Amino acid sequence: MIIVMKTGASEQQVQDVVTRIEAAGLRAHVSVGEQTTVIGAIGDEQKLAVLPLERYEGVAKVMPVVKPYRLASREFRPDNSVVEVGTARIGDGWSLIAGPCAVESREQVLAAAESAKAAGACLLRGGAFKPRTSPYDFQGHGEDGLKLLKEASEQTGLPTVTEVRSVTQVELVARYADMFQIGARNMQNFDLLREVGRSGRPVLLKRGIAAKVNDLLMAAEYILSEGNNKVVLCERGIRTFEDQTRFTLDVSAVPVIRALSHLPIIIDPSHAAGNARYVPALARAAAAVGADGVMIEIHPDPQEALCDGNQALLPENLIGLAEEMKAIHEIVCGNVLSPGD
Amino acid sequence: MIIVMKTGASEQQVQDVVTRIEAAGLRAHVSVGEQTTVIGAIGDEQKLAVLPLERYEGVAKVMPVVKPYRLASREFRPDNSVVEVGTARIGDGWSLIAGPCAVESREQVLAAAESAKAAGACLLRGGAFKPRTSPYDFQGHGEDGLKLLKEASEQTGLPTVTEVRSVTQVELVARYADMFQIGARNMQNFDLLREVGRSGRPVLLKRGIAAKVNDLLMAAEYILSEGNNKVVLCERGIRTFEDQTRFTLDVSAVPVIRALSHLPIIIDPSHAAGNARYVPALARAAAAVGADGVMIEIHPDPQEALCDGNQALLPENLIGLAEEMKAIHEIVCGNVLSPGD
Amino acid sequence: MIIVMKTGASEQQVQDVVTRIEAAGLRAHVSVGEQTTVIGAIGDEQKLAVLPLERYEGVAKVMPVVKPYRLASREFRPDNSVVEVGTARIGDGWSLIAGPCAVESREQVLAAAESAKAAGACLLRGGAFKPRTSPYDFQGHGEDGLKLLKEASEQTGLPTVTEVRSVTQVELVARYADMFQIGARNMQNFDLLREVGRSGRPVLLKRGIAAKVNDLLMAAEYILSEGNNKVVLCERGIRTFEDQTRFTLDVSAVPVIRALSHLPIIIDPSHAAGNARYVPALARAAAAVGADGVMIEIHPDPQEALCDGNQALLPENLIGLAEEMKAIHEIVCGNVLSPGD
Amino acid sequence: MIIVMKTGASEQQVQDVVTRIEAAGLRAHVSVGEQTTVIGAIGDEQKLAVLPLERYEGVAKVMPVVKPYRLASREFRPDNSVVEVGTARIGDGWSLIAGPCAVESREQVLAAAESAKAAGACLLRGGAFKPRTSPYDFQGHGEDGLKLLKEASEQTGLPTVTEVRSVTQVELVARYADMFQIGARNMQNFDLLREVGRSGRPVLLKRGIAAKVNDLLMAAEYILSEGNNKVVLCERGIRTFEDQTRFTLDVSAVPVIRALSHLPIIIDPSHAAGNARYVPALARAAAAVGADGVMIEIHPDPQEALCDGNQALLPENLIGLAEEMKAIHEIVCGNVLSPGD
Repeated sequence: MIIVMKTGASEQQVQDVVTRIEAAGLRAHVSVGEQTTVIGAIGDEQKLAVLPLERYEGVAKVMPVVKPYRLASREFRPDNSVVEVGTARIGDGWSLIAGPCAVESREQVLAAAESAKAAGACLLRGGAFKPRTSPYDFQGHGEDGLKLLKEASEQTGLPTVTEVRSVTQVELVARYADMFQIGARNMQNFDLLREVGRSGRPVLLKRGIAAKVNDLLMAAEYILSEGNNKVVLCERGIRTFEDQTRFTLDVSAVPVIRALSHLPIIIDPSHAAGNARYVPALARAAAAVGADGVMIEIHPDPQEALCDGNQALLPENLIGLAEEMKAIHEIVCGNVLSPGD
Repeated sequence: MIIVMKTGASEQQVQDVVTRIEAAGLRAHVSVGEQTTVIGAIGDEQKLAVLPLERYEGVAKVMPVVKPYRLASREFRPDNSVVEVGTARIGDGWSLIAGPCAVESREQVLAAAESAKAAGACLLRGGAFKPRTSPYDFQGHGEDGLKLLKEASEQTGLPTVTEVRSVTQVELVARYADMFQIGARNMQNFDLLREVGRSGRPVLLKRGIAAKVNDLLMAAEYILSEGNNKVVLCERGIRTFEDQTRFTLDVSAVPVIRALSHLPIIIDPSHAAGNARYVPALARAAAAVGADGVMIEIHPDPQEALCDGNQALLPENLIGLAEEMKAIHEIVCGNVLSPGD
Repeated sequence: MIIVMKTGASEQQVQDVVTRIEAAGLRAHVSVGEQTTVIGAIGDEQKLAVLPLERYEGVAKVMPVVKPYRLASREFRPDNSVVEVGTARIGDGWSLIAGPCAVESREQVLAAAESAKAAGACLLRGGAFKPRTSPYDFQGHGEDGLKLLKEASEQTGLPTVTEVRSVTQVELVARYADMFQIGARNMQNFDLLREVGRSGRPVLLKRGIAAKVNDLLMAAEYILSEGNNKVVLCERGIRTFEDQTRFTLDVSAVPVIRALSHLPIIIDPSHAAGNARYVPALARAAAAVGADGVMIEIHPDPQEALCDGNQALLPENLIGLAEEMKAIHEIVCGNVLSPGD
Repeated sequence: MIIVMKTGASEQQVQDVVTRIEAAGLRAHVSVGEQTTVIGAIGDEQKLAVLPLERYEGVAKVMPVVKPYRLASREFRPDNSVVEVGTARIGDGWSLIAGPCAVESREQVLAAAESAKAAGACLLRGGAFKPRTSPYDFQGHGEDGLKLLKEASEQTGLPTVTEVRSVTQVELVARYADMFQIGARNMQNFDLLREVGRSGRPVLLKRGIAAKVNDLLMAAEYILSEGNNKVVLCERGIRTFEDQTRFTLDVSAVPVIRALSHLPIIIDPSHAAGNARYVPALARAAAAVGADGVMIEIHPDPQEALCDGNQALLPENLIGLAEEMKAIHEIVCGNVLSPGD
C-alpha cells in the first residue's frame, strides 16, 4: 500500500501514519520527494485495507498495490479453471448454454430444450424464480417450474442451470438443478453467495449492472472462500447512458478477466441487448473476444412469452448462429491476450 | 401505450398488433401519419406491459404512457406521506438520523448515540449485519450488535434503524430494531422486499447504485403491495465515471421523487462522498434541495473504525452542521418544486 | 410526436396544446384514456421539435416518434453506403486502417506505413495535430508531421487519414491528407463539422465518449447536410464506471447503427482499450460484431512513443491479427442483424 | 510516480524500468515486498508522465503521485481566486448570473436583462452562437445577437457573458461581450482554449458532460498556461444512466474542486435539470453546497422560446429564488470543507 501525503504535511503527520502501519505489523518506508512525501507499507496489505488511513491528517491519498481477491486471482492459480456441470465442461473449449428465460409450460420448456440440444448446447437454462422489476409481473412458477426443467433435462440429457434468488431457495433448487445461477441483482447478496458456496454445487455468477470487474471477482471470492471453486463468471451488460440497447455489453471484460483470473467467463448477449435483433451480432462478438461460451435465450413463440420475449431468438435461428460462433471460436482459440504480454 | 411502426410497415403488420392489443382487452387506435403509423392502446396498460410487442414484425418501438408503479405514485396519494418510527416522524419537517456505520463495541455505540441525541437526531443508526465487498472484511457483530444498539436506544430514548441483509434475518432484527434498512445492494432483492413488506415495520429503502428513480419506486412498490406503507426512500449516490467521490450524489432525485411520489425521501451524504471532508457540504445541499432529512455517520474515533472510517464525522462536528441544515431547511420548507408546476 | 398529459389535466390545458400544434401546421389527435389524455401531433414533426411543449401546463411528457436525423437514416438510403478514399473503399468488405498514433519522425512513420501495408491495410493513419488532455504534453508536429505522412503515403501507395482539430486547420490538412478525422472530443464541434462538410473530402467521424448513438448520427447529419455524403462512423469506446480499460468499447453500437443508418461504421480498439494487451481481442470482436473495419495503432518502438505508447501494437503482431480479423469477417459477412428483422 | 511490477517480474525487467526512469532524469527507488516489487520514481513526475511505462514487460500498473495540473492547483495558489468581469467579482461572495438561453429578439433580451437586474444578478448571459445537436435547429443570431446583448448590457449596466464556439469567433465576440463562455461540448477544444487564453479576457469554462474533475482542471490549465488567470469553472451536470433529468448535477464537484483548486466554481442548474420545474431546488442546492454562484436561464415567454424553453424560469419566479439562495449562502459562507481537513 502506498500512502501519499499532502504537500506540506508535517513530520508528525508522517510519523503518525508510520506508527499506525507498524502497529498493524507491516514495515513502513518513507520516501521524501521534491513535492510530496510517499510512504510505502510493506507486508500483508490485507491488514491495512481495513484501516481508514485517509482519515489521518496530512494524508492526500491511499493507493493499494495488491489485489483484494486471492483465490480468484491468476496468481493463485496460473492455469485456466474448468468447471464441470454434469456432462458439460465450461472453460474447456466453447460452451453454448441455451433455453427459455422463464419456464412457462411443459410444452414450451420441452420444445426449447430439444432446440437447445439440436443447436449443440451443453447446458439448458430456464428460470423458475424470476426477479422482476415490477411486483405485478410474472414471478416464475417456483417448484413446479423446477420440476418441468428437470423433466426437460431428463428428456434431452442436458444438465441445467437455473436462478436461485434467496438463501431460502438454495436447498429446493439444489434438488432439481445442476448449477445455480446468481442473477445480476444478487451479485452482492453476500448471504446468498456464502450459501451457494457452502453447497459445493457449480455456480454461474452474473456481473451486476454497476459492478466493476473487481467487484465481480470479489463476489466470486465469497463463493471460493467457502471452499467451492466451481464458479463460472458471466458478463451480461452494464448500465450506461446509451439507451438503444437495454445494457451496454462490456466485451473488454473478457480479456481483462483472463488477465486477472483463472475462472471461466461467458457472455449473455440476450440480456445485454434486450432485443433479439442484436443478439446474433453480440453472440459472435462473444466468441471472437475470447469468452468460454455464451448463454442465449430462445423461445418457441417469443410473441407470447411471459418474460423477456423481446430478446428471445427463435429456435430455428440458433442453429446457424451456433455454427458461426464455433467457427469464430476456432480462429481465436487460446489466443486472447496480446502476444508477449 | 404507444406503438410506433417502422416506416413501410405493412397493413397486415399493423393489424397483427391491433389484434393482440384487443385480445388483451384494450382498445387500439391507429393513426396514419406522413412518415409512420402509430398505434395507441387505450385501457389498462399494465396488461400490455408484459407483452413483448417489440417482437412483432414491423414494430419500431413501444412507448409506455402510464407509470408502472401505482401505490408509490403521487396520483394514488396526492399528499406527502409521513412515516412514524417510534417517536420520529419522517416526512413531517426535518429529520436527522445519525450513528456509527457499524456497531463495534458498547463504548463506541453508546458514545455515538449520545452524540446523535445531542445534535438533535430523531433516529439512531448502526449496522449489525454489514454487507462488505470483501469476504475478509469485518461483517458486523450480528445479534450481539443488535443488543448493543437496543441498549443505546434505551439509554437515549432514540428509536433505531439497522440493516437487514437477508430474509432469514428479518425476524431477528425485528426483535431489536424499530426500522429496517434495505441497503443499496439489496434494493432489488425482491424476496427481502416482500418479507419486510409483510412485517409491517417501517422500512428505509436505499437506492441501488445503478437504479433509476423508476427502479427505486418499483422496489418501494414491492413493499407497499404487501400492505406496508411505511416506506422512506434514501438517495445515497449512484455510480458514474467520476472517481473523486465514492459515488455521485444525485440531488436531483429529490425534486423528481417529490413530483412522482408521496413517499418521504432522505439523503445519505456519508456513503455518497466516502470521505468525511465532503460530507458537510453534501448534507447542507440535502437540506437545500428539499429532502426530508439526512442520515449521517459519526464515530468517536474514526481512525480506528472497523468500517468506513474515512467517511465518519467526529461527533463534535455534527452539532454545528445540524444547526446549519435546520436553518437551510427552514428557508426551503414546503417549496421544492417550481411555482405553477 | 406524442404529448402525454398529466392525470387531471384540464380541458383548457389540452386545448392549449392542440392550438399550439395546429399553429405549427400539424394536425392534433386527442385520445382520452382511462387514466390519462394523450395528444398525437401528425405532420412534420421537425417543426414541433423546437417547441418547448413540456413547458405547457398539464403536460406530463413529450415523446418524439420520428428520428431527428434524415440524411443519415436508413429510411433515406436503404442500401449501405460505400465511402471511397483514394484506392480504399470503406463499407465494401473489410477495411484495416493502421499507423502510429502521432507522426513522430521520418523513420517512425515510414516504418509504420510499411508495416501497415504488409498487414494489408487500405489506409494509413497518423496524427499531426494531437488533442491532448495536458497542455504540457506533445501536441503533434503540425505541418511538418503532415509532410512526413504524405511522404509515407507516396512511398507505400496508401491513402491517409489524419485528425483536424480546428476550422483553421482544414485547408492545411486538405493539402496533405486524403481523409479528415474528427476526434471524439470534437464530435460536437459543429463549426468544424460544417467546415469539413463543405470541403467535400471523406470524413472519419469518431463517437464522443458521452455521445449516444443518436448524437453521433446527428453529428454526421451536420456533415451530410452540407452536401458531403462521404462519412464513416467510428466507435472508440464510451466513458463508464469501469476503469480496467480506458473506455468501454460499445460493440452493440455496430448492429444498432446498421439498423438505423446506411453509413459505414468501423471500430478503434486501440483507444477503447488504452492497453496493447487487450487490443487484439477487441479487434477480433469488431470483425465478429459486423463492423466494416478497424483502425489500429502500431509503433515500431512503443516504449519510446511520444503519445499513447501503452496501446500501440508492435508491427509484427499486426499481421497475424489482420488475418484472424479477415477470417472472422468472412464468417459474419453481410449478416449482422437477426434474420427476419 | 509509483510503478508496481507483476508478481514474478524478473530482475532484468525491474532494471529496465529503473534505467528508463534514470534516463529521464529522475531517481528510482526499488522496494521488494512479499508479493510484489514496487518502484518509486522521485523527481519531476511530469517528465515521466509522457512515458508509456505500462508498456514495459513485467509492469503491472503505474500510479501517478503528483497532480497533472499546476497553475490550477491550490498548492500553486493557496487562496481562493476572485475573477473580475466589469463590475462583477466572481469568487467574492455570492454571484447570480441570469439571462436567456439564446438572444432571440430585442424585446426578449431587454426584458430578460431587466428581470435579471431586478433579481440582483451581477452578470447577464445570452447566447448568439448556439451549439445545437441538430443542424436543423436555431443556431443563434450571430453578430446581430451580440449587438442586442451589448445593448441590453448598456441599458442595465450589467456586464455580459456569451458563448464562443470556434477560434474564428473569438475576436468578434470580444468586441461585444465581457466574458467568454466555453460550452460543455468545447471543454476539450484545445485550440479554442488557447485562443481565449491568449485574449486575456475572463472565461467561464463549463464542464464537459463526460469530463472528470481532473479533465476540467486540465482544460483550465490550458487557459492559465497562456497567462490568463481569469477562469471561472462551471458544473452543469454529467451524463449518467438516470433519465428523469437531462443530466445529473454533480454537486460534489464543488467541495472537491474547492479542495483541489483556487478557481471559483459556479453551478448551472438550468442545463443540468433541463426542466424548469426542478431548477429552483438545484439552485438552492448550489448555494448550500458552497458554490460561488449560479447561472440561471430566464425567458419572458418560455412557451415560445427558440431554444431550451423547457428549462427557462419565468422572470417573476427568479426574484424569490434569488433571495433564498442568498440566505442559504450566508449560512454556509466560507465553510465548505469539513473542519480540521
